Amino acid sequence: MNALIIEKLRIDPARRARVGIVIGDVNGIGPEVVAKSWQSGLLHEACLPVLIGSAAAMERAVAALGMDVGVRAIAGPDEARFDPKVMDVIDSGALDPAAITPGRDTAASGRAVGIWLGEADRLARAGALGATVMAPVSAVALEMAGMLDRIVSVKPGETYLVLFSGALRITHLTDHVPLREVSGMIHKDLIALTLHKMDAALRQWGIAAPRIAVAGFNPHAKGTEDSQEIAPGVAAAKREGIDVTGPVSPDSVFRHCLEGRYDMVLAMYHDQGHIAIKTAGFSGNVAVFLGPPYPQVTVAHGTAYDIVGRGIADHSMVLNAILTAGSLAAGNAFPDLH
Amino acid sequence: MNALIIEKLRIDPARRARVGIVIGDVNGIGPEVVAKSWQSGLLHEACLPVLIGSAAAMERAVAALGMDVGVRAIAGPDEARFDPKVMDVIDSGALDPAAITPGRDTAASGRAVGIWLGEADRLARAGALGATVMAPVSAVALEMAGMLDRIVSVKPGETYLVLFSGALRITHLTDHVPLREVSGMIHKDLIALTLHKMDAALRQWGIAAPRIAVAGFNPHAKGTEDSQEIAPGVAAAKREGIDVTGPVSPDSVFRHCLEGRYDMVLAMYHDQGHIAIKTAGFSGNVAVFLGPPYPQVTVAHGTAYDIVGRGIADHSMVLNAILTAGSLAAGNAFPDLH
Repeated sequence: MNALIIEKLRIDPARRARVGIVIGDVNGIGPEVVAKSWQSGLLHEACLPVLIGSAAAMERAVAALGMDVGVRAIAGPDEARFDPKVMDVIDSGALDPAAITPGRDTAASGRAVGIWLGEADRLARAGALGATVMAPVSAVALEMAGMLDRIVSVKPGETYLVLFSGALRITHLTDHVPLREVSGMIHKDLIALTLHKMDAALRQWGIAAPRIAVAGFNPHAKGTEDSQEIAPGVAAAKREGIDVTGPVSPDSVFRHCLEGRYDMVLAMYHDQGHIAIKTAGFSGNVAVFLGPPYPQVTVAHGTAYDIVGRGIADHSMVLNAILTAGSLAAGNAFPDLH
Repeated sequence: MNALIIEKLRIDPARRARVGIVIGDVNGIGPEVVAKSWQSGLLHEACLPVLIGSAAAMERAVAALGMDVGVRAIAGPDEARFDPKVMDVIDSGALDPAAITPGRDTAASGRAVGIWLGEADRLARAGALGATVMAPVSAVALEMAGMLDRIVSVKPGETYLVLFSGALRITHLTDHVPLREVSGMIHKDLIALTLHKMDAALRQWGIAAPRIAVAGFNPHAKGTEDSQEIAPGVAAAKREGIDVTGPVSPDSVFRHCLEGRYDMVLAMYHDQGHIAIKTAGFSGNVAVFLGPPYPQVTVAHGTAYDIVGRGIADHSMVLNAILTAGSLAAGNAFPDLH
């Protein structure tokens, strides 16, 4: 299994990038799924991993899993040794280890997560990290700490949510918007701008000649929004050299992408993309934000308070997120981990 | 393969229903895919098949395929013998065999199809047929004959399109409507009425205790339409004894159905259901109309004029449609033909 994944990753050791892994909310399963991912032995095949969070929380997780790995608190990525036997944790002291209360939302843990997310973003923007991963956090705890805004929010024109699994990769033009308001948000300039951002990100992530498709808005892509906004937006992007097709009938475009005809689909609204990826039988639980200057990968599942500390939490999403972050940061495109 | 399908169908010979198969546009692949379906030897395992259309067109198809089957023109279903060696065709003389022009849309063939569809509907409503199937027709030819209205049209509150494949079965509340207008069509009374129709149809088709789910309209089923219309409509149907859940997050409900939690999902708009069924990797090309007093099954693919008469047209959709029609009319539920 692992040999197969290593074979699929095929990342040149010289290109491995530093990936900063925010350990998530310490009262949830974050630390243990990060530790289990480390235990897989795969992280160093994909990247140079360094954790961001509480060294004490990671020590607990490592001890609970009986792992033969040391945990070392460091001040920044330049101190990291990227040794599989020593888990380096950038620990700024944001969390008092005594405040760890497994299974409960607290302002203390929310505040710590907020600080760590800020640190990760700063380090990545400064070039000290090539990508970041966010292990499960609690929106409730972040809100208690008044730091919910530290989670990247989706904003058309700036930051987009990309869901992916296998050959199916979907950027969403809009996110948590009432469906009846989406029509008014579809504008040709926004479509063209988004296509440029997608094309640039895909090239940066290692897809040399990105082929993009745009989903229509109405049934069979026949309607006002399709002809008045989407089509002219696509035409403008095409004139500027982007390889883009659309608007394509929404009920066909995701299937076509799954079959390999495109590298990515631009969906007009949340459920177009989410229905496609979830019904296709994939996790749909790993996402990357498009817009930040570095790949910012996250898992959509939560802190699973009910099973914290029992060692039974499934770490496959976080592992997938870390390997993907490493692959994208190395310019090695989306790895096929299925 | 066939043995497996027969095993899956498990239809009591005594309950086999008469299924009227409209042969489709004679200038398209209709007659040949109907003949190939007959050639499979499976039709009589599922139903008592009788064709409706042109005996001459079927003779051509049977000859072209080198089939050892007779073709006999009859006046009505009571004359049919349901003999696998003799293809009985209810032929009212609507089509002059000299007017067959393979690969071309003509008013003559459109008119004939319009008449046959009317005959099939009348016979089924009179109880002389238990179900009908429509092989591929040409909307262009029907329009040339001024008979496009003979194709069942979807109308919320009366007739709905049901797509199905495997465990995933989806009724659409609305069909080819501009997406921005759907919000205004979602009303609690319509939801409750539709749930009653779904429940009644599912029972009639052989599902003893139907479990229905209703998709929400907005992301995560959180929005005005979800709370003000869908939820009260679901509650009303529940009070009247229907086993219904919803509104469920649109991005999860189709996956849940696929996993067997529900017998059918009510989707709010065309692409919710169509994206789900097509991305799940199924044909999505067989549909049944919910609303008529009998199962009216159709294939969504077209007349494939470019390959007419070459014997290469894929008959699997029409075969699937006929077996499904037989199964539903026998009260044997949706057959799993995958």
